[in-house]
Order: sequence, then structure tokens, then C-alpha cells
Amino acid sequence: MRSNNIYLDYNATTPLAPEVVDCLREVNPHYWGNPSSPYLRGLLVKEKIEEARTNIAKLVGTPHSEDIIFTSGGTESNNMVIFGTTKYLKEWNEKQKSPLSGIPHVITTNVEHDSVILPIKRLQEDGLIDVTIVPVTKKGVIVAEDLLSAVRPNTCLITMMMANNETGVIMPVAEIGRQLQRVNRKRIADGLIKILYHTDAAQAIGKIPVDVEDLLVDYLTIVGHKFYGPRIGSLYVRGPNSATPIYPMFYGGGQENGIRPGTENAPMTIGLGKAAALAAQFFNQNQSLFICFREYLEEKLKERFGECAVIHFRDPDIPFLPNTCSVSLLTNEKFSGSDILRKCHRVEASVGAACHSQDKPSAILSNSGLSPELARSTIRLSIGLLTSKSEIDDAVQDLANAIRILKDGKKKKENLS
Amino acid sequence: MRSNNIYLDYNATTPLAPEVVDCLREVNPHYWGNPSSPYLRGLLVKEKIEEARTNIAKLVGTPHSEDIIFTSGGTESNNMVIFGTTKYLKEWNEKQKSPLSGIPHVITTNVEHDSVILPIKRLQEDGLIDVTIVPVTKKGVIVAEDLLSAVRPNTCLITMMMANNETGVIMPVAEIGRQLQRVNRKRIADGLIKILYHTDAAQAIGKIPVDVEDLLVDYLTIVGHKFYGPRIGSLYVRGPNSATPIYPMFYGGGQENGIRPGTENAPMTIGLGKAAALAAQFFNQNQSLFICFREYLEEKLKERFGECAVIHFRDPDIPFLPNTCSVSLLTNEKFSGSDILRKCHRVEASVGAACHSQDKPSAILSNSGLSPELARSTIRLSIGLLTSKSEIDDAVQDLANAIRILKDGKKKKENLS
Repeated sequence: MRSNNIYLDYNATTPLAPEVVDCLREVNPHYWGNPSSPYLRGLLVKEKIEEARTNIAKLVGTPHSEDIIFTSGGTESNNMVIFGTTKYLKEWNEKQKSPLSGIPHVITTNVEHDSVILPIKRLQEDGLIDVTIVPVTKKGVIVAEDLLSAVRPNTCLITMMMANNETGVIMPVAEIGRQLQRVNRKRIADGLIKILYHTDAAQAIGKIPVDVEDLLVDYLTIVGHKFYGPRIGSLYVRGPNSATPIYPMFYGGGQENGIRPGTENAPMTIGLGKAAALAAQFFNQNQSLFICFREYLEEKLKERFGECAVIHFRDPDIPFLPNTCSVSLLTNEKFSGSDILRKCHRVEASVGAACHSQDKPSAILSNSGLSPELARSTIRLSIGLLTSKSEIDDAVQDLANAIRILKDGKKKKENLS
Repeated sequence: MRSNNIYLDYNATTPLAPEVVDCLREVNPHYWGNPSSPYLRGLLVKEKIEEARTNIAKLVGTPHSEDIIFTSGGTESNNMVIFGTTKYLKEWNEKQKSPLSGIPHVITTNVEHDSVILPIKRLQEDGLIDVTIVPVTKKGVIVAEDLLSAVRPNTCLITMMMANNETGVIMPVAEIGRQLQRVNRKRIADGLIKILYHTDAAQAIGKIPVDVEDLLVDYLTIVGHKFYGPRIGSLYVRGPNSATPIYPMFYGGGQENGIRPGTENAPMTIGLGKAAALAAQFFNQNQSLFICFREYLEEKLKERFGECAVIHFRDPDIPFLPNTCSVSLLTNEKFSGSDILRKCHRVEASVGAACHSQDKPSAILSNSGLSPELARSTIRLSIGLLTSKSEIDDAVQDLANAIRILKDGKKKKENLS
């Protein structure tokens, strides 16, 4: 890897924390027993996995480690919650004197990650659920009342991300959680199905406080590689199959109480536990570092590009991720964010989610209130624990150079024609 | 880990090959970019993943690396194939002038792993598929004619493991593959749906030749931790969505051509590629070692226990895994395999699949022709690349000691009463 590259795409993925690298180095050759085996080698691995589970539970604010289910990642966690919806209504109806007719209704927003919106669309296309997609405001945020006004008798699930990966906007998950508690109390009294509440906290963990008791969610998606952990994930479920139903997507061995069968990926699970412990332990100082460096980055952008640097999603009333800077570098030539990044020699950043095309303007940005022109010009700079001030200085210089190269290229073309 | 323990449960899981440990040590801190990112850091990881895919393709005998889909493990690979069946018939019907009525029919055997049989049972219970479970003979093997005589007009899938994890018996996958080609040619001429053919090769890879061109399967399950690789897996699909339909279980980012979305577990994928390269390179010498040491183990058991050591599944006409010894150590006291293993000080082995209870006799063994008494007394000893002759000597001694302890305990009890 060229060491002089400047990585400013920590929202796409993070490196492993050095302590996690060390942990995996220790674990990989030694803790390889099958955790389901009844002898010492297996039991020791099982014990390590349970330690990891406890650390992850603590990270999201619960003492109930049994509420953490290990999965292969965020996509699996989100799909598991969403696909469960159809079974949830069916099972609930079976226990009722007056079952609800019709299909389950799901509420979500228009800025979710593909791993939430695409399984929902799949179920909708298959005629298995009804969906309401509640739009965010022009400031990129969901208004609690808008979301809750979409509730219907058959509503089974509300799923809303905790913080947006592209805009950095933080959604009012806790506020909706509190209001939903009241809604659910009334619904239960009225013989309606309880609305389950899910948040994808992929972008939130390690950057802002994430506490399931505060958020009042039933499910919460945890993604290791967004907080310096391995490429696996987990799902918080508030009392799996006691307080909150959860339905497996796979069937097989009895691992994870049958909720997620398959031989445990022990080494990475142990590594995830390590990453969780670190994220909890260093939360305050990491957050301060993010704030300090992002503010420094934004200052430098303003210094260098003046009015041409338009930093989005900075409404004083709307909270945002401490590490994320969504910025347009406006030029007379209307260069796109992709154009600029392609000409950067050192900056590694993106114009949207990594799993999306980098060439067309992001629908998330348009939905969040940016004009097509602004959306097209936007660059997402997300900083992380390895970012330094000198890197930021160099990154701003590199962006300026890229624009100069683009301008020179355009002039040459014009002179030739 | 107590270093004097003797691991003889390589069919449950294997340690990482030292070269894979080294590979992960190198990869973990460096190749962490998001393979979907458009800049160098992502592209280098993408390249490494494609190298891994090529190595895995080669391991199973195909030059088409695009036929390998990465998954979280064998459970996911098996579930993906089986859950696809319902969609396969539906889509096929949509393209036909004379669609088939009724639901898909699946054929399997009565000795499959839970990650095959349980998703099948789930779909059957939900009324989504019909199932024929073809029994193996009293020698633990499937007879091709038995299996193919279960074919019906609506048969969509045959799924049969390549080698049994408990008995070590190798199934006639290639023979059935050849016969099925003829069956399918006739079916297609008759306007019937092509029967797709899947084998779970978890226990076969690295132990016996696995070549998709020889086996003539459409799908083949690959499980890293059974051949000294990481705890992830993959699925071979013969021409995904061109020659062979494959349906995602998750929806999200476009990874793996949308067949298996979710940010790639790059380090482990690269490690899996390394394990695949090693398994291919050292296949012959590994296999010789397995045969030599298993034969040595069986000799020593015979030497020590004489007639009381009954080694199962050794019919001259039935091939078996070179590393697997399924043995009953018969005593007048009728101690169970679990009893004996619990009293072992050093031997780590099992009486069946790790994900099953170690206390009741395995249904796989009963289905494979063992009497309840023999099934109950059976111990599975599976050897691996770290097994040594001195370990085998010590293991046999440890088993003898365990039986002595059990006998002494029983005598003491009898004297007391």
C-alpha cells in the first residue's frame, strides 16, 4: 500500500485497531477449537466467545449478553430483522381471538442503506408487506411526528438508521423510541400488534453514544468494520424470543440458540469483542479527536476554497456525526465530486456509499435536500483514528491540485477546439 | 491450551494451516480497504479477493473463478441452494407454455448434515416443497438407482453430501451426476424442469479428489475450517444465473454480483484462498499421510482391544474418507462412546457432529446400519495434518485408561451396594 495516500473514507470501512490485530494474531493459531465440542479445546473457545458477547452488550448499553446474536455483518443483521416481519404478524395472529387481516406494514425512511431498503422492496414486490417510506426534511433528518403518523393497525416494524453514512445526520431514534412506547401501550390495550423498532447503528457506534436503554429499540445492528473491528457483525435483540421475536434466516446446527446456526467464526468474534471493548474504553477521547480534526479539516477547506467550499448538513438544530464532512467544492466549471477525487493523487475518499456507483449523484443526498448540482459536486470526507493534522493539510492541498489539474485540462481542450 | 491434549476431531474443525496464520498476520493490518471503493486501497483488496476466488475455483476443478460465491460458511451455502428451490420452479414456470402445477420436489438422503436437512424440513413444514428422503443402505451409502427412482416431474433439486462427517462413507456423487445428465436430457426434451444437483463437500475437500467436472454437480459447498482455512465458506455455482439459477438470501450492496451482498470479509477471504492453494498443492502427500496414520491408528486399536474394537464402515466396495475412523470399543459393561471420551485425559474426539448432543446415539449412525448398541458405543476418531504416530500411541493408551477408570468406578459402586 502506498503509504503516502491519505485515507479519508472511514465511513466506508476502518482498519483494524492495532490491539485487534494483536488479538487476532494471538487467537488465530490457538483458539481454533469448535465451540460446540464438549472438551477443553472447544470449551475455552466458547468461553472467549461469551466474553466477546459481554463486551459487545456493554458497548450498546445492556447487561444482557444473551441479547447479542453474532452474524456475518450488517447486511445479514438488517435482513434478518426485516425478513422476520412477515412471520411476526403470522405468529401473532395465531395467538389472537381477533387476528388482524391483511399483510404486515413496515415504516422506513428514504435515506436508508441498501441492506435495509432492498430487502424491504423485495418483500413489497413479492406482495408480502406494505411499506411507507417517510421522507427526511430538506435538512436530511426525520421528524418524529412524520414517521409516527405513518403508523397503521398492521404496522409491525419501524426501521430507521441511527446516523446517515453519507450526510452524517443523526436521526431522532431515542425520541421516536419514547413516543413509540406510548403508541405501543395504546395499541396493546386496543388489541393491536406491538410495533417492533429497529435501528441500523453501523455508522453510530464508536462515534456517538449508543445505548439501547436510551434509544428504546428492540433491534440494533452492529457492524465490526465500522469501528476498527473485523468484518463480521452482530444484532442486538431485546430478549430474543422472550420479549422480542427473532426469526432465523438459516437452519442448521443449534448455534446462537438456533437463531443463527453455523460454526461460530470464533477468531473474528473474539476480535469483535476486543474492538467493542476498545470502542467503549476510548469513546470520549476518540470522539474529541473526531470533533477536533473534523473542525480543523473544515477550517482548512474554508481557508483554501473560501465561499466555494460549501459544507452541508450543518443546521444548528440537527446533530451530525463528529467525523463526517460532506462538502461541495464549487467551481465555475462545475466539476463533479467524482471528477475531483479521480484527479487526487493522495486523497482516498468517496462521493457516497462504497457499494454504489461513484459516477451518478447519490439519491441519499438529493433526498436530504441537496440540489442536483450540489449533490453531484459533493465529496464525503470521513476522518478516523489514524487521521493527523498534517494529513488534513496535505489532503486540502491535494484537492486543490486536483481542481487545478481539471481546470488546466479543460483549458487545453478548449484551446485545441 | 494444554499442549498434551491429543486432538482427534479434525472432522469437527481444523486449526489454521501455519501458512494461513502467516497470511492473516500479513493481511489483517494491511488489506483492510473496502473492495468496492474506487481508489487504490480498495482495488488492491479487490485484486487479492479475486486471486482467492481463482485458487478456490482451481481447488474444485474449474477454471471459471466467477463460479465461486463467497459466503459466511457451509450453513449459509447449503441454505442458499435449498431456499432457492421454490423460486426456481416459479421462475421456470413463468417462461413455459405448459407450466408444471404443484410445488417443487426435493430429493435428499437420511444422513445429511443439519444445515441441509433442517432448511428442507422448514420448507416442507411451510408447505413450500415436497421432499423425498432416500435412505442409505445398511453400509451407510446411497445407491444411485434408489435416489434417481425418487425423481418426479416436479423434482427441482437433488442434494446429497459428498462424504459423511460421522461415518466417513463417500457417496456416489459422480455416478449419480452422470445418470442425472441423461435424466435431465430426457426431461428437457419432455418439457420438464431441469433437476439441479448440489453436493455439500465440507468433509471431502482436502481429503479426497473434488472436481466439479467429474462430479457433474451444479452447486458445491466449500467450508474453510474443514481444510485448515478460516471460518468462512463459499459456494460453487456452475455459471451463476447463466447456466444455473442462484437466488440471494440477503439484499443490499451489489457485492458478489448481488448474489451475496455485504462488505466482503476480505482478510478471511484471502486466507481461504491461501488454504485452497495449500490443499491443492499438498493434496497427494496429505492424503497419503491420512491413510498411513489412520491405518496405524486402526492397527493399534486392534492390537490393544482385539475383537472388542469394531471398526465400522469398512466394506471393501464402499469408499471412505482416508482420515476417519468410526469405532466401537465394546465392553461387557456396555460403556457408551460418550462415557469413554469423558474419562479420557488427553483424547479430544466426539461421538457425532459437534453441533449435536454428545449424549444420545447419533441418528446418522443408526440410519447407516449400526444397531442402537453399536451406535451408542461409537467414537469418531478423525485425524489431521498435525497428528503424529506417538500421539496415536498415546491416544490408544488414553482410551484404554478411560475404560479401566470406568470399570473400576463400576466395581467400586457394586462393592458399595
